[in-house]
Amino acid sequence: MKLAQMSKQQGAVCLLDDGGQEIRLPYIWLRDNCPSGFHEHTQERSFDLLSVALDIEPQKVTLEAGVLTVDWGDHVSVFDLAWLEAHRPGQTRCDPADIQAQTWDASLGADGVPRANARIIMENDLALANWMRDTKRFGLSIVEGLNGDPEAGMAVARRIAFLRETNFGRTFQVKSKPNPNNLAYTSDALPLHTDLPNQELPPGFQFLHCLGNNAVGGGSIFADGVAIAEDLRTTDPEAFHLLSSVSIPFRFHDQHHDIRRRQCVITLREDRQVSEVCYNAHIADIFDLPSDIMADYYRAYRAFMTKTRDPSFVLSLALRAGEMVVFDNRRALHGREAFDPSTGYRHLHGCYVDRGDFDSRLRVLSR
Amino acid sequence: MKLAQMSKQQGAVCLLDDGGQEIRLPYIWLRDNCPSGFHEHTQERSFDLLSVALDIEPQKVTLEAGVLTVDWGDHVSVFDLAWLEAHRPGQTRCDPADIQAQTWDASLGADGVPRANARIIMENDLALANWMRDTKRFGLSIVEGLNGDPEAGMAVARRIAFLRETNFGRTFQVKSKPNPNNLAYTSDALPLHTDLPNQELPPGFQFLHCLGNNAVGGGSIFADGVAIAEDLRTTDPEAFHLLSSVSIPFRFHDQHHDIRRRQCVITLREDRQVSEVCYNAHIADIFDLPSDIMADYYRAYRAFMTKTRDPSFVLSLALRAGEMVVFDNRRALHGREAFDPSTGYRHLHGCYVDRGDFDSRLRVLSR
Repeated sequence: MKLAQMSKQQGAVCLLDDGGQEIRLPYIWLRDNCPSGFHEHTQERSFDLLSVALDIEPQKVTLEAGVLTVDWGDHVSVFDLAWLEAHRPGQTRCDPADIQAQTWDASLGADGVPRANARIIMENDLALANWMRDTKRFGLSIVEGLNGDPEAGMAVARRIAFLRETNFGRTFQVKSKPNPNNLAYTSDALPLHTDLPNQELPPGFQFLHCLGNNAVGGGSIFADGVAIAEDLRTTDPEAFHLLSSVSIPFRFHDQHHDIRRRQCVITLREDRQVSEVCYNAHIADIFDLPSDIMADYYRAYRAFMTKTRDPSFVLSLALRAGEMVVFDNRRALHGREAFDPSTGYRHLHGCYVDRGDFDSRLRVLSR
Repeated sequence: MKLAQMSKQQGAVCLLDDGGQEIRLPYIWLRDNCPSGFHEHTQERSFDLLSVALDIEPQKVTLEAGVLTVDWGDHVSVFDLAWLEAHRPGQTRCDPADIQAQTWDASLGADGVPRANARIIMENDLALANWMRDTKRFGLSIVEGLNGDPEAGMAVARRIAFLRETNFGRTFQVKSKPNPNNLAYTSDALPLHTDLPNQELPPGFQFLHCLGNNAVGGGSIFADGVAIAEDLRTTDPEAFHLLSSVSIPFRFHDQHHDIRRRQCVITLREDRQVSEVCYNAHIADIFDLPSDIMADYYRAYRAFMTKTRDPSFVLSLALRAGEMVVFDNRRALHGREAFDPSTGYRHLHGCYVDRGDFDSRLRVLSR
C-alpha cells in the first residue's frame, strides 16, 4: 500500500493498495475515527464530531512502516494500515455471524438435518459455535441426548443468550389445553407457519424440546421459507414482488392482549436477498388492502401458500422424547400433524432466542 | 347502505353507502373472511383459503336488515353491515393505540410534561390508560409519588406489560461504576441519544426511576426526536432524505457481547411520517458508506446532531428521588449533564417495555 495523494478537491487522502486500487479516505471520516476518540474502558466513541469543521483538512500526511499519520495542526491521528483496509469506506465489515443461508427442501431428509449432542455443546465452546453455525446456515437443527429434566432444553437456549419473552411467557408448553387462546394449544393440525408475525419483531430462533410424543399423529413438519420465497421469485416474479412490497395486518388477541403489526410475507435485505418470512394464516388479520389490488394480492398469497403444501418442500420429523428441534422462526416454517390426545401424550417445551443475541454469542465465540 | 351490484367482471359485490360512495368487496375476500371461518375459542382464522378457487363467485347475494348474505352454493356467509364498513378493503382499521404524536420543544417546559401519580395509576385502570395515552402522545411523562422501594418504578412498568430484557438485564442501575462497559455507567456528561440502536429492535418505552439525585450536576435532558426530524425535513430536505434512506452501522461490544445492527437515523412509516429516531454517537460504529456519499452523509448527520444541541429543542428536568421519567426511547432523545460523584449520590433504576406490548395494553384498557 502506498500514499497516492492528499486531495483538497476530493477532501480525502488517497492510498493505492498493492493491486493498484484506489482507497479514498475522506478527511472528516479520518478525523471522526481517530483511535484516540474512543473511550478507554467502554470503547465507545467519545470524540465530539461537532468539535471540528466539516471541511477539516490535514496539514501533513505520512505513510511509513504500516502506519498512516495524519497531522491536523492541533491534533495528530495515527492509523494502523490493516485497520484502515478492514474499515475503509464501502468495505463490508467482517462479521463472524454473517453465514450464508444454505437452502433446502424435502430431499434434505431427516438424516440431513444437522445434529448435535446436548452434553457436548453444553460443555464445549467450540462444539457450541459449530452447532450454532450449522443452525444458522440451515435455519434448522436437532439437539439430541437431553435428559428428562423439562428445563434441559431451555438450558441449551440460555447457553446462547437470555430468552426472548413474549405474551406467552419466557417459555411455553405446547400441549392441548382446555379453552386454548391459540391453535398451537389444541390437538388440531397446524399447517406450516412462522410464530408471532403479529409482533414488531417476530421471535428469532425457536427451541422446542420434546418431553413426550406418543400420541397417534403429531409429527412435526418444516419447510425452508427462504427456499420457497426464492422459488417464487423465479417462477412467479409478480407474486414475489407483491409479497415483498405490500404489508398485511397480523393480529393476536385474547382476554389480556391485542397485539397487532403489519408485515410483508417476504422481507428483503438491502442486497435483495430474502432475510425473513412472515407467514401465519391463523393470525393473519382481515386483509385491508385497497380493493383494486386485493385480488392480485390474494393470487400472490395463494401462490406462496400453495408452495408451503408442496411435498417437495416439506420435511417431516418424528421428534422423540429427549430431542429438541431448533430453528430460525423467521426463516423456517413449522407445523404439525393433528394428533389424538386420547391415544397418548404429546408435550413440547419451547422458548425463543432472538437473532441479534444469537449472532452476538457467535461473534464472541469466534474471537 | 344498499346493494348496488354483483359484478362478475370486477369479481366483487358492490355496495353503495348512504353518501353514494361505492364499497367494493372482492368475492375471494368475502369468502376468506366469512365469520364461520374463525376458530370458536381462539378467534384465529381456521378457514383454509386454498379450499376454494381464487375466482370463486357467489350464486346469490342479498342485503336485508343490516345483514349481507352471500350464498356460495356449498356454503352461506352472513356478514353484519357494520362489520363490513369497519373492515372493508382500503379502510384504516380503528386502533385505540393509534395516537397522534404531539411534538414539543424547549418551550414545553418542565411544567408542560404530563404527570401522573404512581398510587393512582397503580390502582385505577382509567387513570392508567389516560397516563399511557399522554405518554404516547408526548413521548415523555413523569410519574410522581413513588415510595422508597427501588422496585416501585419497575412495578409501574410491569403494570403495563412484561419488561423487555436486553444484554443489560431486565432492569438496570444507572450510577457510576468502576470499569464501566457503557458511558451511562460513568459520571461523564451524556449528550442526547436513544438507547441501543445497535439492536434490531431498539427498546421502546423507557422507565427511569430516580432513587437519588443530590450530586452536583446530573440534570436530565430530553428532546423530541420527531420534532427535530420534522424540522430537518423542512429546513434541510436533502439531509432528511439521506438520514431516512441510508443506514449506518451501530455496535456495542464488551467482554460478553458484540451486538451490531444497521439503522437509519430517521425511520419513516409507510405514510412518510417519522416513526422512529436512532441516534447515539457513542455506539455509532465506523461509518462504512461508499466514499462518494460519505462527505454528504457526514454533512447530513452533523445537521441532525447540531439540532440536538440547539437549546430551543432541549428540555431540562431536575429529577427528584421518588419521581420516574417515562419516555419513548425510539422517539425522545435523553441525556444528562456530567456530575461529580464525590459531592453526592445519583442513582436511577431503569427498565423498558416495548412499543408493541404498550400498545396491546392500551387496546385492552380501551375495550
